[in-house]
Amino acid sequence: MTVTNTQLAIGIDIGGTNTKFGLVNHEAKILEEGVLKTGEYPTIDAFTEALYTNLKPIIDKYQADYTIKGIGVGAPNGNFYNGCIEHAPNLHWKGVVPVRDMISQKFNLPCSLTNDANAAAGGELKYGAAKGMKDFIQITLGTGVGSGIVVDGEILYGHNGIAGELGHTIIRPGGRKHWSTGLHGTLESYCSATGIVITAKEFLAQNPDRPSLLRDVAEDKIEAKTVNECAVKGDELANEIYQYTGQILGEALANFVMFSSPEAIILFGGVTKAGDLLLKPAKEHMEKNLLQSFKDQVPIMLSQLKEADAAILGASSLV
Amino acid sequence: MTVTNTQLAIGIDIGGTNTKFGLVNHEAKILEEGVLKTGEYPTIDAFTEALYTNLKPIIDKYQADYTIKGIGVGAPNGNFYNGCIEHAPNLHWKGVVPVRDMISQKFNLPCSLTNDANAAAGGELKYGAAKGMKDFIQITLGTGVGSGIVVDGEILYGHNGIAGELGHTIIRPGGRKHWSTGLHGTLESYCSATGIVITAKEFLAQNPDRPSLLRDVAEDKIEAKTVNECAVKGDELANEIYQYTGQILGEALANFVMFSSPEAIILFGGVTKAGDLLLKPAKEHMEKNLLQSFKDQVPIMLSQLKEADAAILGASSLV
Repeated sequence: MTVTNTQLAIGIDIGGTNTKFGLVNHEAKILEEGVLKTGEYPTIDAFTEALYTNLKPIIDKYQADYTIKGIGVGAPNGNFYNGCIEHAPNLHWKGVVPVRDMISQKFNLPCSLTNDANAAAGGELKYGAAKGMKDFIQITLGTGVGSGIVVDGEILYGHNGIAGELGHTIIRPGGRKHWSTGLHGTLESYCSATGIVITAKEFLAQNPDRPSLLRDVAEDKIEAKTVNECAVKGDELANEIYQYTGQILGEALANFVMFSSPEAIILFGGVTKAGDLLLKPAKEHMEKNLLQSFKDQVPIMLSQLKEADAAILGASSLV
Repeated sequence: MTVTNTQLAIGIDIGGTNTKFGLVNHEAKILEEGVLKTGEYPTIDAFTEALYTNLKPIIDKYQADYTIKGIGVGAPNGNFYNGCIEHAPNLHWKGVVPVRDMISQKFNLPCSLTNDANAAAGGELKYGAAKGMKDFIQITLGTGVGSGIVVDGEILYGHNGIAGELGHTIIRPGGRKHWSTGLHGTLESYCSATGIVITAKEFLAQNPDRPSLLRDVAEDKIEAKTVNECAVKGDELANEIYQYTGQILGEALANFVMFSSPEAIILFGGVTKAGDLLLKPAKEHMEKNLLQSFKDQVPIMLSQLKEADAAILGASSLV
């Protein structure tokens, strides 16, 4: 964010469930924030209207003392170049939706839009673990797997504005079919919270004779968090689920490192709460699959942004 | 290359077998060229000396009418940032060799060094199929698999100067062990000329009852070229080898496209002589593994540089 001490930026993070918005100052402090249920707005017009209704009083409150410099929006399948959300499988607005221009017109403010994972990487670059870095890759391990790639100090958008979809790269060819994209063996199918739950159910089914604390939970109530809790209690099967997940993540990270030679990999999102359960096997298998010149060069770090603030800060960093 | 019509650039391509060098003008014309046997020079000092002895008369010849602007060097495992060849498995000089500085001192000219595949991409950008593109990925399918990635008009070097080692990314986890890196299931193990020969031998051994023209060739004489010739003649097994190789290449290309969102993939090197035998399955499996937003967006093109000139032109493009 390049806002000065008399300027503020609006950050909006559009998610499948919630849309968070906030007003951010030059010190990355969120002065005001709020939330909308994304699914309650059948059209993007209704959604833009609701954003305006919610943000207008906030803008008015600060207008006397500050200039609102602009609006940054992070959204799934957001295209930086054309400002549209394109074919987002996790949103109910279908097709290509010109969100940036609609918001910009409604608020009469400049607006930038990007993929939510790119926005997260932008936040990390400006305020977090990647401060001062010129080349890094941020991987968000949440319900899905997102990624933001920074090359020479800039977020990588590529020719079409949609670079950095690392969650959808193949790491187990012919493997598990993704529940929404239909692609086989992609990183997201294994290393997202959703993927970990699928792995847990597979491991339980394939090992009917092995005891596990996971069997004390109704199968449809198993979450990634449940697997984490059981692993922490020493449950062997739950630990093996993290070994399995970490190996796949590590192999994918090796591929990413040999693509862009980053200074660090930064992991973000709920799945990283497992800590060393995931990081140790990930690091081991990343190193094992790197060419000599890349070995022991690229640390795997955790995000330094509070998860509650990261989405708004990341979006606001676009301003 | 940014040389003017009164300037010339020297391009040097260091290979495991041959080192090619040439003097290039502003129209990408190679005015003079020559070759050394890389393996005949036990030390990098002796090699630099030999380069100088060979190039000095050429430089003298043109010195009256032109300024020699500088020297560009493409070399396996070349690091753009420090100008060293680092741990090159295919060269006999071991460890980290400061080639750029030695050449620069010897010739008293500015010198840049990069990975040979990056140099090839540089040549393609300045003179070839990628002219005018800002984002593309060039894959060299030769004895090995090299790659040069261009992002926003610049070759991607990353934090350590060694980005773009896509030949060493995993595409068949736990698969074939690489003859030199020891890594498992990497792109180079399958899609290089060397990999195709290994696949041919595997297919022949696994299908002892299937007839194939490949069986008319002594096993240790089978080359990628042999497989190509048999496939062209309609040999079914040879065609399946290309299907298999093309599928693996296509899956890897899908991964690369979703990383950097290039305008095109450009293929270069001897293996591409197979044409559609390789390109068709590669395209099919690339498209099959792309997210919706990337589908039908990224053509797979062939290099437009003559193979004989490409190495010298690529290296000279660094000047």
